[in-house]
Amino acid sequence: MSRPPGRKQENHKISRELFVLTYGALVAQLCKDYEKDEDVNICLDRMGYGIGIRLIDDFLARSAVKKCRSYSETVDMIAQVAFKMYLGVTASVSCSSAAGNEFSLILDKNPLVDFVEELPAERASLCYCNLLCGVIRGALEMVHLAAEVTFLQDRLKGDAVTEIGITFLRKAEDRKHRRN
Amino acid sequence: MSRPPGRKQENHKISRELFVLTYGALVAQLCKDYEKDEDVNICLDRMGYGIGIRLIDDFLARSAVKKCRSYSETVDMIAQVAFKMYLGVTASVSCSSAAGNEFSLILDKNPLVDFVEELPAERASLCYCNLLCGVIRGALEMVHLAAEVTFLQDRLKGDAVTEIGITFLRKAEDRKHRRN
Repeated sequence: MSRPPGRKQENHKISRELFVLTYGALVAQLCKDYEKDEDVNICLDRMGYGIGIRLIDDFLARSAVKKCRSYSETVDMIAQVAFKMYLGVTASVSCSSAAGNEFSLILDKNPLVDFVEELPAERASLCYCNLLCGVIRGALEMVHLAAEVTFLQDRLKGDAVTEIGITFLRKAEDRKHRRN
Repeated sequence: MSRPPGRKQENHKISRELFVLTYGALVAQLCKDYEKDEDVNICLDRMGYGIGIRLIDDFLARSAVKKCRSYSETVDMIAQVAFKMYLGVTASVSCSSAAGNEFSLILDKNPLVDFVEELPAERASLCYCNLLCGVIRGALEMVHLAAEVTFLQDRLKGDAVTEIGITFLRKAEDRKHRRN
């Protein structure tokens, strides 16, 4: 994707309100389609995955980032650059394992839940923003990083913050890839 | 919605790519749910209506527009201000009836179809962006303007432009409202 340097990329932006409401309509439709929260969560994750594997090209082109040399650098890139670019917010990062392959993205404010006050009682297991997990998983897979991505805390469920856990898998295969 | 004057409202914006791909996932889900294109179109319109009736408050607060005094002014407001604010593009307007209640919004470029090349042959009657019609219809209804909003031309169907037709209804009721 080429663009004239210094020109404001207004056309890459869209109103957050429209996005949030459209996303809400998508989740509501899936709640109609599937009785079990777990099935809605799986569906959102799968949709997100499909988005992530396409969005990564756009991200690499627009961010012009160099290759990340560690999991930690990769997670910082997601938290600081990708979240800012796509959601207009940044996340803070913590590493939660001695092995150095488990991280958390912590959002004080989740921009996707603006119009959602709380989950209905009968939807207590719904991971409302599970699309995000799928997007991250899909995008990471396209740069040869297999990962499990799940919500660990969710303000919609009464937690103090929203926390997305990322666990990188298959280090061996990753190392092999880096050598090539 | 209050905001400090002159401060850049970055937090109101989100990446268009993420929106377009999420919208695509929504349409794809509805195509799974409903066999008939007509049912998908109705569902998208209904979802859009639900969005429009909520989005209008945000629009009135952020645009700080005065009351429009004619249908023509109203349509210009949608084309120039609302489209710009929510989709990052503007539309041109034409009036297509002597009665002065039928208008067209013409988009040279439809920001919602970036990743859509063409509709599959078995989905030839799908109005892919029908959510937009519902949004406009819902928002207008909240300012006491009943209208029919439909796609008249669609580049996804091979037309030269994308054209959304707006026909204002119930002039009598509207006049009564203005007197009050």
